[in-house]
Amino acid sequence: MGNPVISSDKVEGTTVYSPDGGKLGSIDNLIIDKRSGQVRYAALEFGGFLGMGTDRYPIPWSMLTYDTNLDGYVVPLQQDQLEQAPRYDKAESPEYTDEYGRRVYDHYGVTW
Amino acid sequence: MGNPVISSDKVEGTTVYSPDGGKLGSIDNLIIDKRSGQVRYAALEFGGFLGMGTDRYPIPWSMLTYDTNLDGYVVPLQQDQLEQAPRYDKAESPEYTDEYGRRVYDHYGVTW
Repeated sequence: MGNPVISSDKVEGTTVYSPDGGKLGSIDNLIIDKRSGQVRYAALEFGGFLGMGTDRYPIPWSMLTYDTNLDGYVVPLQQDQLEQAPRYDKAESPEYTDEYGRRVYDHYGVTW
Repeated sequence: MGNPVISSDKVEGTTVYSPDGGKLGSIDNLIIDKRSGQVRYAALEFGGFLGMGTDRYPIPWSMLTYDTNLDGYVVPLQQDQLEQAPRYDKAESPEYTDEYGRRVYDHYGVTW
C-alpha cells in the first residue's frame, strides 16, 4: 500500500509517461481549488524538446497513476492525443473558472 | 472574487501570519491524498529562527485564509499554540494514516 499521501514538491518535476512507457513530459505544478483544497489538475510540460516548452497541459488528477518501476506517472494518453488537448501558455494566467475546468474534464471524458 | 484556484508552487514558500499580523513561519509543502487529490495539510515551517527549523507543523488546509494585504496566509493561531501542536521532523517520513490525520484535525477542532 505505502503512504496514502504525497508531498506537493515531490509531485512537481515528476516524469509523466504514456502507457507504452514513452516519456511525455513532466509535471510542472498542481492547480488547487482555493476553497476546497482539491487538486483540480496537474499541469504537464513537455520540457521544450518539441518546441512546446512554454505550454502547459492541464490533466485531471485522477488520470495520473504512479508507477513505482518507472518512478513516474502514467497517463492513458499518447503524444498525438496531447497535441489536441487543452493547453495554455505558462506566462498567461488562465481563468480557471468552473466552465474551463468542465471543458478540460470533458475533453478527457473524466467526471467533474 | 479573483481566481478560484492557485498553483502549488505559489503556495510553497508563502508566509503565514497569526491574526495579529505576527509572522509565524512559511509553508514548506502541501500534503496531498494520492487517491482523491485532496490537500490534507499545509506543512508549516518556522525557518529556524526559533531553533525549530527542521520541524513541520501540519495545518488543515481550511485553516488558511489568504490575506491580500499581507500577501500571505493568516491562521487563527498564536506562536504558543503552535508550540503545543502536532509536528514531525522534516527528515522523517511521517505515516500519514487516516488516524494521524484525524489526530491533527482533532487538535485544531476541524472536521475531518
